[in-house]
Amino acid sequence: MSAGFVLGIDFGGTKIAMAAAAPDGTVLRSVRLATRAGDGAPVVLERALEAARRLAAETERDEGPLVAAGVATFGVVRGDRVLLAPNVPGWEELPLPRLLRDGLEAPVVRLDNDVNAATAAELRWGGLAGTGTGLYVNLGTGLGAGVVAGGRLVRGANGAAGEIGYLLRSPGEPGHGAGRAPLEEHVSGGGLARRASALTGREVTAPELFGPSVPSELRVLRDRALGDLGMAVANLAIILDPERIVLGGGMAAEPALVSRVEHLLARAVPFPPALEPAHFGADAALRGALALALDSL
Amino acid sequence: MSAGFVLGIDFGGTKIAMAAAAPDGTVLRSVRLATRAGDGAPVVLERALEAARRLAAETERDEGPLVAAGVATFGVVRGDRVLLAPNVPGWEELPLPRLLRDGLEAPVVRLDNDVNAATAAELRWGGLAGTGTGLYVNLGTGLGAGVVAGGRLVRGANGAAGEIGYLLRSPGEPGHGAGRAPLEEHVSGGGLARRASALTGREVTAPELFGPSVPSELRVLRDRALGDLGMAVANLAIILDPERIVLGGGMAAEPALVSRVEHLLARAVPFPPALEPAHFGADAALRGALALALDSL
Repeated sequence: MSAGFVLGIDFGGTKIAMAAAAPDGTVLRSVRLATRAGDGAPVVLERALEAARRLAAETERDEGPLVAAGVATFGVVRGDRVLLAPNVPGWEELPLPRLLRDGLEAPVVRLDNDVNAATAAELRWGGLAGTGTGLYVNLGTGLGAGVVAGGRLVRGANGAAGEIGYLLRSPGEPGHGAGRAPLEEHVSGGGLARRASALTGREVTAPELFGPSVPSELRVLRDRALGDLGMAVANLAIILDPERIVLGGGMAAEPALVSRVEHLLARAVPFPPALEPAHFGADAALRGALALALDSL
Repeated sequence: MSAGFVLGIDFGGTKIAMAAAAPDGTVLRSVRLATRAGDGAPVVLERALEAARRLAAETERDEGPLVAAGVATFGVVRGDRVLLAPNVPGWEELPLPRLLRDGLEAPVVRLDNDVNAATAAELRWGGLAGTGTGLYVNLGTGLGAGVVAGGRLVRGANGAAGEIGYLLRSPGEPGHGAGRAPLEEHVSGGGLARRASALTGREVTAPELFGPSVPSELRVLRDRALGDLGMAVANLAIILDPERIVLGGGMAAEPALVSRVEHLLARAVPFPPALEPAHFGADAALRGALALALDSL
């Protein structure tokens, strides 16, 4: 059969991953390149488009036509721009949806942020499959969530639903309006590493904080962050009453983190949802880009 | 034309309101009775059903058949029981959906909690009409919210979506598991009145706290509550990215409250939504019961 194939592209701050997949999601070919953010947005984009067209041309010989493309990016996709995307200089100025449509020669191109894309992958093939109300929480260098209601991804009025890095922990603390992302600064891997490094005067990584011999001052920092994270996840569960919460990202499997979140869910939520590890790992956003493409068919 | 009519019933802690309405929502007849909670759930229910059957019989003469009924109740509707409903002794033990179906002789009966019902009314005829993503926050004696995504009410896995009275304000405070509702105890009208009365040793009502000559110790209590409420609403907006937030309930129009919530929305939310007063007032849940009935057609 030749029902054609879909293309997925995941733009990350350090690498760009892309894949061609059959209509059932089977990956046929994949490519990975360095982002080289310093080259600036137009060059980064053009290099990616070239690689994608080559990938599509090679796949077309056996699989028939490219029927749809899905693209995941850092930032918040709103209309024809990507906002809150400082990773690649100039990315916020590009009319990305149009450039992707023109550059990929695909009948349909769907663009969303990486966490929403990962949520789409979990919803189609992973831990959220079959859920009506569900939640994906990504805890890696950054912090973000994907909200599922009525069996579909909730994007919100501006594509910013689930941007939980901006959640306030107290009414008085500086928030988005002051250029801050309070919860992300305190509990994401990047935020934790920055705060631990500032405290000790040496470079500390987030995984180090979860190691066996972490000094007590850093353990205090970490445990406060886990409390804040646990409260945020519990409050998300109170608001949405999800069937399941799927945890993804580099820090998601830390036992101290999982047990703290489970503890707060049990203590605070009227109907505590199941907490499960994400099905997809480092390739979650790429799989999500493929899911976005397939969702459009 | 005789497309029939719908029936709506709102069970409240002190009164039961009911109405018959045309398919376009026009109220044709309405009745109101005292709940008399002390009589116990079976008596309260039977009295309401009798009044409802009488109302239906009178309406039927001119309007044709009863085509659907919607019922709003305090508590959380889960399966065939209403949970978290201490207002009327024994209410949690009644298999309410079945008793309503049998007692009302309606082809369809839809049951939901009062805040979800009010949200359905705002979505059909009020401040949330036409929204894809929206939020209704009810701040009266109690505290609750209704979540709208994809243009529909989100009920959650257990009918408990939007039960924001349980939100934690800090990771360590006692929550639902300890029989508490932290946010409701601090910011609802009932919670504020209880705390103010305990502080002063005399009976203080919530409206008093918003009066011109409120003593400074009570102003501190009130302003802390408004900060907590503002943070909760801002965090809801960050999570859902709604087009609009509609504020309802007895305290919703207090200028001090509205300005504090607006301030926190502007400070903390990447895309601050419009904040609007609810279209429906004291009859919001009854109008919601009618909306639930019409939604089922």
